[in-house]
Amino acid sequence: MKVIVQKYGGTSVGTLERIQAVADRVARTRAADGDAVVAVVSAMSGETNRLIQLARDLAPRPVERELDVLMATGEQASAALLAIALQQRGVAARSFLGHQIRIGTDSAFGRARIRRIEIDSLREALRRGEVPVVAGFQGVDDDSNITTLGRGGSDTSAVAVAAALEADVCEILTDVDGVYTTDPRICPAARKLARISYDEMLELASLGAKVLQIRSVEAAKRYSVPVHVRTSFDDSAGTWVVREEAGMEDILVSGVALDRDQAKITVERVPDKPGLASKLLGPVASAGIVVDMIIQNASHGGDTDMTFTVPLADFDRALPMVQKTAAEIGAAGVVSDSNVVKVSVVGLGMRSHAGVAARMFDVLARENINIQMISTSEIKISVVLDAKYGELAVRELHRAFVEEVDGTGGHG
Amino acid sequence: MKVIVQKYGGTSVGTLERIQAVADRVARTRAADGDAVVAVVSAMSGETNRLIQLARDLAPRPVERELDVLMATGEQASAALLAIALQQRGVAARSFLGHQIRIGTDSAFGRARIRRIEIDSLREALRRGEVPVVAGFQGVDDDSNITTLGRGGSDTSAVAVAAALEADVCEILTDVDGVYTTDPRICPAARKLARISYDEMLELASLGAKVLQIRSVEAAKRYSVPVHVRTSFDDSAGTWVVREEAGMEDILVSGVALDRDQAKITVERVPDKPGLASKLLGPVASAGIVVDMIIQNASHGGDTDMTFTVPLADFDRALPMVQKTAAEIGAAGVVSDSNVVKVSVVGLGMRSHAGVAARMFDVLARENINIQMISTSEIKISVVLDAKYGELAVRELHRAFVEEVDGTGGHG
Repeated sequence: MKVIVQKYGGTSVGTLERIQAVADRVARTRAADGDAVVAVVSAMSGETNRLIQLARDLAPRPVERELDVLMATGEQASAALLAIALQQRGVAARSFLGHQIRIGTDSAFGRARIRRIEIDSLREALRRGEVPVVAGFQGVDDDSNITTLGRGGSDTSAVAVAAALEADVCEILTDVDGVYTTDPRICPAARKLARISYDEMLELASLGAKVLQIRSVEAAKRYSVPVHVRTSFDDSAGTWVVREEAGMEDILVSGVALDRDQAKITVERVPDKPGLASKLLGPVASAGIVVDMIIQNASHGGDTDMTFTVPLADFDRALPMVQKTAAEIGAAGVVSDSNVVKVSVVGLGMRSHAGVAARMFDVLARENINIQMISTSEIKISVVLDAKYGELAVRELHRAFVEEVDGTGGHG
Repeated sequence: MKVIVQKYGGTSVGTLERIQAVADRVARTRAADGDAVVAVVSAMSGETNRLIQLARDLAPRPVERELDVLMATGEQASAALLAIALQQRGVAARSFLGHQIRIGTDSAFGRARIRRIEIDSLREALRRGEVPVVAGFQGVDDDSNITTLGRGGSDTSAVAVAAALEADVCEILTDVDGVYTTDPRICPAARKLARISYDEMLELASLGAKVLQIRSVEAAKRYSVPVHVRTSFDDSAGTWVVREEAGMEDILVSGVALDRDQAKITVERVPDKPGLASKLLGPVASAGIVVDMIIQNASHGGDTDMTFTVPLADFDRALPMVQKTAAEIGAAGVVSDSNVVKVSVVGLGMRSHAGVAARMFDVLARENINIQMISTSEIKISVVLDAKYGELAVRELHRAFVEEVDGTGGHG
């Protein structure tokens, strides 16, 4: 008997009809091979936003502890409703909330991290032949305060439960049917990947692919939980996110990603002294703003330029902070551009194949696209471009790295 | 420093504007005399019904454990929202759910009874100068399952918290401004009582007065918690529900109640043998139907008639059960009438003043109202009448027992 954890996202439980369909699917999965199923559910789509709006109407910045108490009701309701729908089908089921399982987290309200899971109650339920229906997204800290894991946190709940149960697979059932080589809305030639490694998925997630929350992929990698991303609307296979396997490096690039959520800030001609980056970025980081790419150009005569990117939504907050610090440390000026995008290629093959970067720059140069920033990791190359070139760049890179090499094997 | 428990019902927290008003009131109560305030909240009005409907759309009879998990989200959301609104006013506040306080109950989902309250966390919050905002209506059983206390259960939560904290008063803030001598919509001469004893309130609550849940009055009586029923819409004093005091018996009748939720079933000419009532009423009780008045008439030649009333909503279920049993035990027949009401007069004065019943029957006889059933307790007389006479009977009894004796002192 296998243990299958199935996570259903907000759109998959967005209406009572969808909840009925989910109950049917759980029942079917169970009946097919006698497998044990654990369901993990998100809030009904729209519910989380509705709750946040209620809180914001009362207070511009609602106190985070209470916001978590409020938000946790969304998944609590979904879990109860799915359990009710399952029982109605004669499937023994029981909802489990964060404090019942229990999913222990730190006390960082709104973005808590799971520290431990006590799954005895889940195991008992499985032993009794029940389907445990776990409220995703939520946990409790050591003082029994309710916490939430941040947007997309139900993915992390599901992977954590799968890891704790040593489940055979964690299925992420969602409104897309898998992980694509790039966004099909931009590039019609995009195709679904059959398999992808944790590391590649991590890069793609951090580059704006919404299909999985980064932390859920990190957790899946750490505990070697096989993740299967698939649609909840039919039974077709999706994309398996798994440990690196033989042959995966044969393909250069698994995905091309476009991240529009970028703004660029350059501090010009800063006196080049130790502690410079810390002085400039410290206030930004303290304000909870995530700085993404950071580049410090070679100094010209004791001065240096520093450029970095921040999420678009934080740009208006970040800019005055940087301007203030720049003036204090005697920089020549601050220039900024919120009309940029980041385009990246990701693939395990880069580790063993030289020349991917050169080829990437060549593809962009042929289209007369100017590269503003470059950042690389072991399996990723990202460039920042003028926003208007974003989609063109994605299509051309996809053609060069994915379409023209298809059929050469690999894990596509 | 006094400790004041304030319970806010569904209409009092029914909109964000009302929640703002509640936050203002809590802040004002606290500031006025430096009193410590504990708020207990219901779900926003309409929310409980909305949730029940969701569940019923999935299953005609949703499994009770999960229904409680679902329903508990209503009070959880209210508690978080009120805490947010208070913090926004600079009032330190913290929500407490049933499992956090913790409010321990039995496992009777949907109608659980509170067994114990661990209020250490509440006391600590008060010590820190915070306003604890308690989610009403909910608790947890010994296995950490979420339970709910039944309709109006937030009243009971509030009284139980007040008892555990040895609070100076439990204020029930609602959309009516107190307890009336009778329903003002039926009898414009009805007036608000300044004080009423627990026992009278218990009788009135069981007779259909919606102002307080019976169990909350029972709990208030058991632990001698002074309860103040008042409106949340202004600061006017309402009705105090308190221990019996000197002078309370001077007034014959404190209230006249009309209960339209009645249906009458008579089993005719049953062979009068021991165990008869048990045979007839056993199946009805097993089906969870509450039998109210029961009358067994004097037997005529070895046979007897038995009449009893059930709630209108259960009439269609109860009748066939009774018909089946009646046939089995050889009764002559079953007649029923769902077009009846129960009218009652309640007052501590009946204990020491003879003749209240006689006067009641006289008032009804003068109006040519036929009495179908009579039932009495120490401080109450109830009669069952043809429904069309209900309002007339209430008005005439109110005139005879309340208006004509007003100004004679007592606790009005």
